[in-house]
Amino acid sequence: MTIAHLNSLHDRAISAPESGIVEVVNYGRQKEGLIPLWVGEGDLATPKFICDAAHQALLDGDTFYTWQRGVPEMRQALADYHKRLYQRNFLPDRFFVTGSGMQAIQLCIQAISGHDDEVIIPTPAWPNFSAALEVSGGRAVAVPMQFSLDGWTLDFDRITSAITDRTRAIFLNSPSNPTGWVATREDLSDILRIARDRGLWIVADEVYGQFYFRQDAKRAPSFYDIMEPEDRILFVNTMSKNWSMTGWRVGWISAPAELGQVFENLIQYSTSGVAPFMQQAAATALNEGDFFVREQVERAQHGRTLFLNILRKSNRVRLAEPDGAFYLFLAFEGENDSTQAAKRIVDEANIGLAPGSAFGSAGEGYLRLCFARQHAELEQAAHRLSRWLSD
Amino acid sequence: MTIAHLNSLHDRAISAPESGIVEVVNYGRQKEGLIPLWVGEGDLATPKFICDAAHQALLDGDTFYTWQRGVPEMRQALADYHKRLYQRNFLPDRFFVTGSGMQAIQLCIQAISGHDDEVIIPTPAWPNFSAALEVSGGRAVAVPMQFSLDGWTLDFDRITSAITDRTRAIFLNSPSNPTGWVATREDLSDILRIARDRGLWIVADEVYGQFYFRQDAKRAPSFYDIMEPEDRILFVNTMSKNWSMTGWRVGWISAPAELGQVFENLIQYSTSGVAPFMQQAAATALNEGDFFVREQVERAQHGRTLFLNILRKSNRVRLAEPDGAFYLFLAFEGENDSTQAAKRIVDEANIGLAPGSAFGSAGEGYLRLCFARQHAELEQAAHRLSRWLSD
Repeated sequence: MTIAHLNSLHDRAISAPESGIVEVVNYGRQKEGLIPLWVGEGDLATPKFICDAAHQALLDGDTFYTWQRGVPEMRQALADYHKRLYQRNFLPDRFFVTGSGMQAIQLCIQAISGHDDEVIIPTPAWPNFSAALEVSGGRAVAVPMQFSLDGWTLDFDRITSAITDRTRAIFLNSPSNPTGWVATREDLSDILRIARDRGLWIVADEVYGQFYFRQDAKRAPSFYDIMEPEDRILFVNTMSKNWSMTGWRVGWISAPAELGQVFENLIQYSTSGVAPFMQQAAATALNEGDFFVREQVERAQHGRTLFLNILRKSNRVRLAEPDGAFYLFLAFEGENDSTQAAKRIVDEANIGLAPGSAFGSAGEGYLRLCFARQHAELEQAAHRLSRWLSD
Repeated sequence: MTIAHLNSLHDRAISAPESGIVEVVNYGRQKEGLIPLWVGEGDLATPKFICDAAHQALLDGDTFYTWQRGVPEMRQALADYHKRLYQRNFLPDRFFVTGSGMQAIQLCIQAISGHDDEVIIPTPAWPNFSAALEVSGGRAVAVPMQFSLDGWTLDFDRITSAITDRTRAIFLNSPSNPTGWVATREDLSDILRIARDRGLWIVADEVYGQFYFRQDAKRAPSFYDIMEPEDRILFVNTMSKNWSMTGWRVGWISAPAELGQVFENLIQYSTSGVAPFMQQAAATALNEGDFFVREQVERAQHGRTLFLNILRKSNRVRLAEPDGAFYLFLAFEGENDSTQAAKRIVDEANIGLAPGSAFGSAGEGYLRLCFARQHAELEQAAHRLSRWLSD
């Protein structure tokens, strides 16, 4: 019976991979006193002013079907937020509200690619883009980045070489989850030039743009800084990280406004929109939450410094200091199988890390550590880890 | 520039149809005093006890990433709800929480079908199943039902004839949106027999199961009444209609438990789950909301009787009395183009109806009217409509 049911599903569903992070989380979930640094979320619940806005909208009866593209208040709030952050003008009609950043990615994949189409992805990378592409019938073409102690680098010749006549897009995540690599303005220009030359879309994941630790800048370089209206760039983004709203599943796409009807239709036929009371709360977060994002970034910056100071003392650790996002991507001498290492670290150090192999084969041998948590806990985790390393 | 962006999208995205209902809604949205009976939702906001449960969960900090398959409380509440409704035992591990009934459909399509695969759909039917299938690269094969004044009927020989070697499933919606047709237990057995014989999946949409107006039964016949564990049936369902939660976008799949890992993965790569605070509210609705569902059904029953009594007096109206759901599917003498008719009815009668053509070519010439609204408003709408008919 079991076999019969599973076998009668479609291949692309059966072959969707189980998350390699979840495998380790399930291994260690019940372990007492474990400090969980494995998933990409902080330890703060959503701030009360955002929750209260959702409650008020619920009491106001904001519980009916609504605009597929998003409620006007949230699209306006997105335009205003982008204007403050990028110092350029934005109109609400280029923003489409989605049921998570993940869904923003899924919808962009549906918009630009079909059966057997290819998308180029520098790796190590968050695995969900590739997996969503493959569920949708496409193929992810990984282009490994190079590690050095000075930082990860992206080889643009390798990107160019990977382009075939099936290539539809380049997916670029900067600041990068998991490596912390941040594309410079020149890197972005190179990618944009390749995309222009070859008629490709860029799917830009700049979710961690404000988690940027270089040059006292307020944010990382962005395609918004260099793009022209005719450029084919789809931005995917989320409320999750900046505003501690991981569980909410609210995100957005920023795209040329003339694609509005297409995204409206794709939203209609996938989830048919996002709860209006959640959108009102998201609009409140966007309009009134800048202070909270700043606090989050400063908190992450402290976590980063704390870990780097302690781990630098160990000669068993190899890492490039991350310029952005809120992860360390570490290799430990003698540990080549990252899933096994992650499980041993659960058992022996009582810390939860994500195995690098979950981020593609270029991530094997590394472990990802999230430092977006309270200082005291991170300090304890850092000491546990350095004790484990010296044992 | 506009053309260039649109042209560079993938065909299957560009060809996703605009909702024919939305076209008319947009036409009449601003009309003063219009009574909107076009979309499939009632006029009641979500009951306060459900909203309060969401707020409490928000205050409790239930705002983090959660189980992809759904939180245990909601899966248990689903098992208990099904047990009460179907008088059989259900375990929580067959339920998977989704971001709307629409997403439940999308995930089932991804699970069982791929590029160029076919699904058979009796029509007139809610258009979103076909559209989602085609966005995903599959093909919808419509099998028209037959109208008579005694009711719509489904020709099982035509279903059988439509099966090819690409057919993966039969999609059956009973009670039907838009026709109000309800499959008898014998109808369901016939479909199940065909599916067993030909190795097909059934995707069962029994969303309106409690909106059943025959025989004083508590609910319509269901595949749950006749199925065996080895049968390949995926049920798609939603919190939307029973509990006045249309805007929430929370639904569920009920499927063989051994498909759990596949659905977990498909959820991971589409929206990565449903907000835990919404799931707590949904669990409250399921556990404590039976009384509210009863009220909703009685309200719909009143609306149905009211309209039938008034419309029977006109000899320009042709309809089969609906056995279930909360719609009338009407033909008006002399009106063959349903979109034009719907727009004229907006202009001349100040009522919003949905054009039948939105439900497939078998629906052309009909209009759909939703009667899940307050009595006084429905009464006014019925009089406006009968006045318009006699003019």
